[in-house]
Amino acid sequence: MQNFEFYNPVRVVFGPGEMNRLGELASRHGKKALLVKSTGPLEKLGIYKRAQDLMEQAGLTVVSLEGVEANPKLASVNEGIRLCSENEVDIVIAVGGGSPIDCAKAIAMGAVDTGDVWDFFTHKRTPEGSLPIGTVSTIAATGAEMSMHCVITNEETGHKYATHFEYHLPKFSIIDAELHKSVPRFLTACGMVDAITHAGENYFAGDKNTPLTDRIAEGVITTVMESEGILDDLENVNLRNNLAWAATMGINGITDLGRGAFEYGAHIIEHALSGKFDVTHGAGLAVVHPAWLYYRWEQDPEKFKQFERRVFGIEGSGREGIDALQQKYLDWGMPGSLKELDIEESSFNDIADIVVHDPDTFISDKQIVIDVLNRCL
Amino acid sequence: MQNFEFYNPVRVVFGPGEMNRLGELASRHGKKALLVKSTGPLEKLGIYKRAQDLMEQAGLTVVSLEGVEANPKLASVNEGIRLCSENEVDIVIAVGGGSPIDCAKAIAMGAVDTGDVWDFFTHKRTPEGSLPIGTVSTIAATGAEMSMHCVITNEETGHKYATHFEYHLPKFSIIDAELHKSVPRFLTACGMVDAITHAGENYFAGDKNTPLTDRIAEGVITTVMESEGILDDLENVNLRNNLAWAATMGINGITDLGRGAFEYGAHIIEHALSGKFDVTHGAGLAVVHPAWLYYRWEQDPEKFKQFERRVFGIEGSGREGIDALQQKYLDWGMPGSLKELDIEESSFNDIADIVVHDPDTFISDKQIVIDVLNRCL
Repeated sequence: MQNFEFYNPVRVVFGPGEMNRLGELASRHGKKALLVKSTGPLEKLGIYKRAQDLMEQAGLTVVSLEGVEANPKLASVNEGIRLCSENEVDIVIAVGGGSPIDCAKAIAMGAVDTGDVWDFFTHKRTPEGSLPIGTVSTIAATGAEMSMHCVITNEETGHKYATHFEYHLPKFSIIDAELHKSVPRFLTACGMVDAITHAGENYFAGDKNTPLTDRIAEGVITTVMESEGILDDLENVNLRNNLAWAATMGINGITDLGRGAFEYGAHIIEHALSGKFDVTHGAGLAVVHPAWLYYRWEQDPEKFKQFERRVFGIEGSGREGIDALQQKYLDWGMPGSLKELDIEESSFNDIADIVVHDPDTFISDKQIVIDVLNRCL
Repeated sequence: MQNFEFYNPVRVVFGPGEMNRLGELASRHGKKALLVKSTGPLEKLGIYKRAQDLMEQAGLTVVSLEGVEANPKLASVNEGIRLCSENEVDIVIAVGGGSPIDCAKAIAMGAVDTGDVWDFFTHKRTPEGSLPIGTVSTIAATGAEMSMHCVITNEETGHKYATHFEYHLPKFSIIDAELHKSVPRFLTACGMVDAITHAGENYFAGDKNTPLTDRIAEGVITTVMESEGILDDLENVNLRNNLAWAATMGINGITDLGRGAFEYGAHIIEHALSGKFDVTHGAGLAVVHPAWLYYRWEQDPEKFKQFERRVFGIEGSGREGIDALQQKYLDWGMPGSLKELDIEESSFNDIADIVVHDPDTFISDKQIVIDVLNRCL
């Protein structure tokens, strides 16, 4: 096991109905809130009105940032920073999935800074603070509600880059599976894939003596798979609960501890893809994650044997576990190839170029990316 | 899964050599430290001098509380509170096992209060604050370094009572397995039993739909058992690392989430025992834990089948898993009966009386305690 530092002070308030605590929790951190809203159905479902009412009842003044898209754009971040400054906002509240949450993280960091917020994503500068952040997470997927990660797309350059700062950790996150019931089948499955990849790519990297970290990662993956009944029973709150907690635990840092590695290979390639083509993150991962694992298995199959034995009960070469995982993704209605995402081989060189120039990258050889992408055809 | 709130802001600094960060970490929280020291070999090993030097090099002034015993006594707590007040201490630093850490938690809570600190243990009052706490944990056992629990013995009444407050969560905890190498075989095994019981008694209580929480608890228990090679290789830092992280994760709250129960039956009975007879906590648990589980199995065997299948690979009635666990404890040199701890049947009524009057108890029927104790003969 490698030495590590772990710090995750997010107050998680978990369970059906807990959204009602939003006002009380937010009011611990100030009087003026910026409510970050996504496009999508939450407005229509009345969730944003409810969030605003809850905060106003607790004495907060609420300003809203409307229309944060999937793969949130730098323009939204800058607009949010402007709103914070104009309105002297105390706390940034995101209600939605990973997109408004990541947007809120970037806004909160930019709101206490005088320079260009994109500098933090290109590693030009590191932030010196952040407004407090609170979230109401409405889908089990990115785990952004308890992670120190933030991913933003610069729509002018087509770069989708990540930051990883303690400042990004929300003061509180409400995970209320009642709100997850309206997530449609396809997006639910995308979230399941995202959760599995978080626990299931760095698993194969770094120090091999991480027994508890491994078992927790396997537990996350197994729990997601055991929740698959949701896909035929979308309003099953018990299963939604189980999936939600697994998704959160999959990327709050605990499944990485002691590895001394941060090799989110499928993620960094998928970020290049979805920055360029705006595909749904989980659907992109469903294609890239198995391909990445096949590539890693060829290099170092040992850990894959442990994985397939414990997660799938397979005693094989390690490769059969990847086959089984990919089959799960297909069973859940996920795409099995880049072709299904309308991404052609002719773009592979550009995608590889983006990956090796990502300031966050651990892949310096374009050929590795192209090799992985060729496995996705 | 039951609704829950989870908050654990301890900064864990983990790994061999990390004790060197003590000064830097402590200095983030003030200028004057109270160093809480245990009896036992740490003074002789030079650990306390090293702690003091590290803090002084970082600009701190250090006052010491000497000689905190196992099953820490209220007198030590009150002496520490006096030292904090006289010296205007900013932060309380415990270096040692669960005893000095729990003592530090109680001191830090009492230092900002004007009344009797024992009131918090008898549930007469709740605290309104605490000095910051930092720890260097020198044994894998109680998990006090990342838990909100604190157990103190009132030597006048013979009561060993617990408190559970967010204020008890340390600002930082250094877990440096280099320091664990000098823990002798018997105490190492006691720590292993303690860690297993933390993850392995509430496991059987409350809501049965807690799939990820279950798998993490099983992972903790399995990791402890896989570390048993330490007992024949006390200086094996890799195994010490694995055990240390399992012990910490076993009681930081994560293995309880969603159960909606807090039924630490073996612990509450063992606290009554060790408050009265001053036995080593882990050795007492090695006797009481299996007895408690046999009692629980008779009431509700289902969950025990999951436990024995996943942890021991046994497909049985559930009882065989408890047998296997008890055998592990015996293999590790732990006592198998109260007789070996010089505790006679004649004291059972008194012990049961203490348990049902513990302000923290969930057991209201003395006969249950006597039944469990009879299984320990």
